[in-house]
Amino acid sequence: MSEQKKTTIVLFSGDYDKAMAAYIIANGAAAYDHEVTIFHTFWGLNALRKDQQVDVNKGFLEKMFGKMMPRGADKMGLSKMNYGGMGKKMIKDVIKKHNVTELPQLIELAQEQEVKLVACTMTMDLLGLQKEELLEEIDYAGVAAYLGDAEDGNVNLFI
Amino acid sequence: MSEQKKTTIVLFSGDYDKAMAAYIIANGAAAYDHEVTIFHTFWGLNALRKDQQVDVNKGFLEKMFGKMMPRGADKMGLSKMNYGGMGKKMIKDVIKKHNVTELPQLIELAQEQEVKLVACTMTMDLLGLQKEELLEEIDYAGVAAYLGDAEDGNVNLFI
Amino acid sequence: MSEQKKTTIVLFSGDYDKAMAAYIIANGAAAYDHEVTIFHTFWGLNALRKDQQVDVNKGFLEKMFGKMMPRGADKMGLSKMNYGGMGKKMIKDVIKKHNVTELPQLIELAQEQEVKLVACTMTMDLLGLQKEELLEEIDYAGVAAYLGDAEDGNVNLFI
Repeated sequence: MSEQKKTTIVLFSGDYDKAMAAYIIANGAAAYDHEVTIFHTFWGLNALRKDQQVDVNKGFLEKMFGKMMPRGADKMGLSKMNYGGMGKKMIKDVIKKHNVTELPQLIELAQEQEVKLVACTMTMDLLGLQKEELLEEIDYAGVAAYLGDAEDGNVNLFI
Repeated sequence: MSEQKKTTIVLFSGDYDKAMAAYIIANGAAAYDHEVTIFHTFWGLNALRKDQQVDVNKGFLEKMFGKMMPRGADKMGLSKMNYGGMGKKMIKDVIKKHNVTELPQLIELAQEQEVKLVACTMTMDLLGLQKEELLEEIDYAGVAAYLGDAEDGNVNLFI
Repeated sequence: MSEQKKTTIVLFSGDYDKAMAAYIIANGAAAYDHEVTIFHTFWGLNALRKDQQVDVNKGFLEKMFGKMMPRGADKMGLSKMNYGGMGKKMIKDVIKKHNVTELPQLIELAQEQEVKLVACTMTMDLLGLQKEELLEEIDYAGVAAYLGDAEDGNVNLFI
């Protein structure tokens, strides 16, 4: 087939290790010349948050979610053995020791490779996240756009 | 292609937020005229439980599982920040505030749109769930039937 | 189509129940004559660990991970209701009662059916797992090999 292959990932999880897996697969697929989309929904949106606080007007519940959720990829915890951040620190230590790329750099690499990073507008609204709080040069879309990409996808994953 | 597209979802998770994501994708795909199947297995079966208690004969272990697991979609907890139900209450509050559809209504909508809701008979047996305890008008099948659907699927997800 | 169908599963999770689901789907697909690959990454590698301790040279962090992670499929916990192993014991009891196959035997069956069991070399390195500690007759590969399998897959799942 001469057509470009397609990979789509729904990143639902807000865990550092699961987001690493998502971005490693996405970057691998982009290197193999796939057209790649990561659709960030629910807790996965936290991977796209800027690490500094951004002043925006919010309701009370939305402010609470904003405070309770990690501000950016680097602050996300592990899905297993997080132990209040201790396991996360251990993982970051072995990542450095073995010269593996850390999550924030995996996200930068994805942007350089033109992986399409999409924030799910419905769950942004639900969790009270605003565009000003998220990384630059990402896309905004809903489930219809995701399905449009995925129905022609060769590799479709939910992480 | 003139053939109808197909989406299949294995709903393994018993978390409210993950089940919401599954049903939002399923309803979206059905609206785009996909043939859609959600195969409920392990904790995902809880989304199909009736919310009232149903009197059925069970062994001791099966009774224990019945008591420990949430009785129906509305009682399921969050995968993250559940905080003994507090986070769940917050999510339900923002769902109402932003006019997003709650999980039990998403399930009704799926049934109206003829999404095929399947309960995995092997894990029903394992967890001691009986047909009388589950919603009406659902299907019962095993992994072979799932694979029969999925091998022709355009979008196959495990949630 | 006369070509052999293909199923690929990324097993990221180190939970007993999720690994059971992965191996049940894999064995089902193999029985339907699919070419099946399970790519074990991150905590999913624990399903491939030998149950006895193997003496290998390791750094401090790698030793810690080795001790903290379950030694083999049989020692993995549940994703839900584990209750310090109590829920796990209950699941094992109902598995026996209902004559369902336990995880270690599901893995043996997969090997007999020539399901390709792959250990992700990048995360082996990260978590300090060495070949001597893993089951015999498995493959070792990275994300590129996974993508090579998955891009032609009929059923691709991330578990």
